[in-house]
Amino acid sequence: MQFIKDYQQTVSKAIHEYTFTDKSDPLYEPINYITSQHGKRIRPMMVLMANEMFGGDHQKALKPAIGIEIFHNFTLVHDDIMDAAELRRNKPTVHTLYGLNVGILTGDALLLKSIKFFEDLEPDLYHSCLQVFIRSGLLLCEGQQLDINFQKEKQVSFDDYLKMITYKTGVLSAASFEIGALIAGADSAEAENISAFGKHLGIAFQMMDDYLDVFGKDQQIGKVHAGDIAENKKTVLYILARENATQEELESLDYWYAIENQNKDKIQAVEQIFRRTKADERALLLIHKHTDIAKNHLDQIKVDDEKKKPLIELAHFLLKRES
Amino acid sequence: MQFIKDYQQTVSKAIHEYTFTDKSDPLYEPINYITSQHGKRIRPMMVLMANEMFGGDHQKALKPAIGIEIFHNFTLVHDDIMDAAELRRNKPTVHTLYGLNVGILTGDALLLKSIKFFEDLEPDLYHSCLQVFIRSGLLLCEGQQLDINFQKEKQVSFDDYLKMITYKTGVLSAASFEIGALIAGADSAEAENISAFGKHLGIAFQMMDDYLDVFGKDQQIGKVHAGDIAENKKTVLYILARENATQEELESLDYWYAIENQNKDKIQAVEQIFRRTKADERALLLIHKHTDIAKNHLDQIKVDDEKKKPLIELAHFLLKRES
Repeated sequence: MQFIKDYQQTVSKAIHEYTFTDKSDPLYEPINYITSQHGKRIRPMMVLMANEMFGGDHQKALKPAIGIEIFHNFTLVHDDIMDAAELRRNKPTVHTLYGLNVGILTGDALLLKSIKFFEDLEPDLYHSCLQVFIRSGLLLCEGQQLDINFQKEKQVSFDDYLKMITYKTGVLSAASFEIGALIAGADSAEAENISAFGKHLGIAFQMMDDYLDVFGKDQQIGKVHAGDIAENKKTVLYILARENATQEELESLDYWYAIENQNKDKIQAVEQIFRRTKADERALLLIHKHTDIAKNHLDQIKVDDEKKKPLIELAHFLLKRES
Repeated sequence: MQFIKDYQQTVSKAIHEYTFTDKSDPLYEPINYITSQHGKRIRPMMVLMANEMFGGDHQKALKPAIGIEIFHNFTLVHDDIMDAAELRRNKPTVHTLYGLNVGILTGDALLLKSIKFFEDLEPDLYHSCLQVFIRSGLLLCEGQQLDINFQKEKQVSFDDYLKMITYKTGVLSAASFEIGALIAGADSAEAENISAFGKHLGIAFQMMDDYLDVFGKDQQIGKVHAGDIAENKKTVLYILARENATQEELESLDYWYAIENQNKDKIQAVEQIFRRTKADERALLLIHKHTDIAKNHLDQIKVDDEKKKPLIELAHFLLKRES
């Protein structure tokens, strides 16, 4: 996946180049701390790939792409506060290092800065891209609030879960592809299709993330096996398991999800229920379903198959399958 | 000041009309709670007044005006978290009522929603108005961070204080006037003058606020006499007092500002130092200075004096002087 590494490097270099050299900014340090951490840079990659697929000018899409990464950083900083997370990628989170107030303000400043990265676009494009961007940002907030609400509820319907992950993960990848396409001059039907590709890819990605947390073979760095079970998260596995569970299994799930710790017995017991209720298989079917929907939308776009290849490879990369 | 009340009613009605009827939004309740509290609606009033002065279409400026009020609400919600304020205008603050996480998210959503209120503008205006808006928002964040830093520092220079209040209060009123002017089609020189009018009016307002907290005669509802002294705030009075203080007075200020409570002796002692060092008189001189600068900028704008009258009356209203 050399081409993905190339994209990541392009983005990291551009972030370094374009951002935050103004050391007199009292928020310089925390902003620099979070933006220089090398994430996967997935969303800016999506902007650039969509833009390239539609024959756009790479240079024109670069700053908006970074804007979306900066926005993503805003969500990380505020989400970490809300989740009381002390570490992210094995490093202290912003509020852990600088305190709650700086954490809140750093997020606010990142959100505002992310919008500044669109300013070089001509007014028409600025207007259409920001509309997509802001609408997605709002849905993201709604998704985060749904997620918080779910933590308190014993039962979450599959539809509500789907809405939550669509808002939390689907809409920003949809927006990233759509903005890349708009900058390249794609028409509205094309923009809609690439947006839908991104949305369903995001949904499939989140479900795969839920699945691999429990059933993944090789553990990712910094991730704990079945951390979602330990934290009583309402993942796709949990929700599907409840749909098929017997009364006894439901009571068992209730029992374990009332305990807040990393207990080996708990993880083993819950894993067994996931398997017995076929939540694992059904999750994989749903992942395939959304991947297929995504690909169908890509198929409807009238550009050479050769140009679509990077997007398909990105999908494989995100869904942890080697192509 | 009937015309100010009229403006306030127009804005409150429009906020009620345009905002947040979507009850399915999981943040509907806290957003509705904060936006329906009747503040002074100063900033949207500034947008509408500037727009009217330059002969603009009232209806066109109304939604952006509300956007600025919504943005102001975002700052209130996050600032209240940072200040650990339990009450605002005698009502529980958002995070007190709904918890920290909802407080953070509500602020984020308000910030994003505020930008949506500019979307009806044609692309060129959208671009120019949002540029002004976002730049001001960023300076506001910097100002808030400076304010937080100042709380830890014993000594703050007058220049740093001026920078802080310019960012925290001046830039958003400057932006409000400027955006109103831009929507009315004002040229860039006019926009600069009205922006400078707003900036210096904001500075004078903040200094007056500092002054009246200690030396105001009739107390405003919900305000405590010399609350800034009780909270050890680095106000213009404190900073000017230190500039002229004897060694003994400096030590006395250090002593009292190390005590964190509302002590009658403390307030009396500090008030005396403010008077002895002539901080009160010098603060009034500075307020006059910035009011004069503001008015000079207004004078340079080539529209009939009659049309400028509401802005001058607003200035008097803000500076608590009956015109």
